[in-house]
Amino acid sequence: MRITVCLTDNNRPEPWVEGLRAELPQAEVEAWTPGAALADHAVVWAPPQAFLDEQQRLRGLFNIGAGVDALLKLRLPPHTRIVRLDDAGMSVQMAEYVCHALIRHFREFDAYEADARQGVWSYRRPRARRDFAVGVMGLGVLGERVGKAIAQFEFPVRGWSRSPKQIDGIQCFDGAQGLDAFLAASRVLVCLLPLTTETRGILRAGTLGRLNGGRPGGYLINVARGAHLVEDDLIPLLDAGQLAGATLDVFASEPLAPAHPFWRHPKITVTPHASARTQREESVAQIAAKIRALEAGADFSALAGVVDGQRGY
Amino acid sequence: MRITVCLTDNNRPEPWVEGLRAELPQAEVEAWTPGAALADHAVVWAPPQAFLDEQQRLRGLFNIGAGVDALLKLRLPPHTRIVRLDDAGMSVQMAEYVCHALIRHFREFDAYEADARQGVWSYRRPRARRDFAVGVMGLGVLGERVGKAIAQFEFPVRGWSRSPKQIDGIQCFDGAQGLDAFLAASRVLVCLLPLTTETRGILRAGTLGRLNGGRPGGYLINVARGAHLVEDDLIPLLDAGQLAGATLDVFASEPLAPAHPFWRHPKITVTPHASARTQREESVAQIAAKIRALEAGADFSALAGVVDGQRGY
Repeated sequence: MRITVCLTDNNRPEPWVEGLRAELPQAEVEAWTPGAALADHAVVWAPPQAFLDEQQRLRGLFNIGAGVDALLKLRLPPHTRIVRLDDAGMSVQMAEYVCHALIRHFREFDAYEADARQGVWSYRRPRARRDFAVGVMGLGVLGERVGKAIAQFEFPVRGWSRSPKQIDGIQCFDGAQGLDAFLAASRVLVCLLPLTTETRGILRAGTLGRLNGGRPGGYLINVARGAHLVEDDLIPLLDAGQLAGATLDVFASEPLAPAHPFWRHPKITVTPHASARTQREESVAQIAAKIRALEAGADFSALAGVVDGQRGY
Repeated sequence: MRITVCLTDNNRPEPWVEGLRAELPQAEVEAWTPGAALADHAVVWAPPQAFLDEQQRLRGLFNIGAGVDALLKLRLPPHTRIVRLDDAGMSVQMAEYVCHALIRHFREFDAYEADARQGVWSYRRPRARRDFAVGVMGLGVLGERVGKAIAQFEFPVRGWSRSPKQIDGIQCFDGAQGLDAFLAASRVLVCLLPLTTETRGILRAGTLGRLNGGRPGGYLINVARGAHLVEDDLIPLLDAGQLAGATLDVFASEPLAPAHPFWRHPKITVTPHASARTQREESVAQIAAKIRALEAGADFSALAGVVDGQRGY
């Protein structure tokens, strides 16, 4: 069995090659170079089309991330299935990121710190957490973990997903028909959706304005993909006071351009796509376990994280 | 039965009086004024000695906070027992405060935000959470809740208390003989101790320098009392690089003086004793339930939060 590693965006392939060799001693594992021998499985990040055009024997295309929207734009070899990471150390990071942003907003720690920089011992009236219901869009492995982490801090938690779900401690809504009620019942909105034709641009004036029952004070946390947000809609909602703020980790174009108005808007916190980094050790172990299962005769349908091209994730 | 409410520090007694009247319709509830009729129970915050000298019939002295170090400095009437709040909405706030400070430090969100203010899309190598063991000093209602909230984010959690404890997910140490091992096994130190003669000044060069096995990189979060920290010891440890930073909510003298060097030290985050505010509704309900139990014949030993004057909490 041959495995090839094809990474771009400054991800060095060597540690992945070494990790996979250690996990799968019977396999031949190499970093891809044009014209390399045909591999059975590939471990990839943003591979070029040329790679896929060449690697016609591929069965498993293992993406070292959770979002596969970029991969789905490529032409795949005829028998290739895309497998995304399921968790592999990302959900705890997402829970951290979202809880930090949520608590920071709810408890006004940013305002306290601004006062402290002026040497001001300030008092702020505490706000009631029952008034800060949090809505999580996307209830996969990441969304469920994030929702449960938020529930631990006793915020009311809502969830919205394509298909119906039942999760302890989360009031679940689903489908297009459930979206309005979900938005109205949420004040803080956390986007963890896959990027699909249905979810592109789902965060726009018409939806964000419905948060919190249409009253001012909504807050957006986007940790999914920049294209979920209609960026031009955000600043008017903030400047009008309809939204109280936003924490954004992802952008339509990354890195965010130096002149982009999000950088310095006082109600927007920007982080550089840092909410959940791929953890190499966990990811290598997870991918190796899936390859072992496939080589032992398992079907792709038995694996977690196999992408449905129609559905888009 | 007569209940008196005696609050200082800009806490208005009226809402407490109204809340207690609603919970205990058979009682006479009044805000204290000098010379008022003798009450059976008092609900207090930082009452003057004159109040206690006068109210010689008091049985229960219900403090609307968790820390009773200030009350224990006063002379009490002969049959009075001090009862502190146990939780009443404070533990979730403490968990929020500590998790926010911990995640902010571990994930370097402060540094990302500083970069963002300069319009810089930065990359920081993720740090391993196994290298960021968190040690919680004080394992009462608040400490246990905080420890469990931290464990949910998969940090190793240690705990230290006066007497031995066993708590799922927390490696527990106890007593003077367990302190060194606890400090060595902790990188981030969270102080939630009661302030007693034994714990005053427990955060000092000799203890803080032992964090993280004596290696640089320790971090302090103090949400208990300012007097737990020897303030003059902190800045040298930070400036020498032995400690990486500190988040402080409490100070030897509050409000923190405008000229105090903690305000503007780049490695110190100051908040104005805001980590956990008393929640009036929950507190009124809790105190009323305890008064009901006492009036129904229960002994103080049956109540949670009754203070042991010898122990100091």
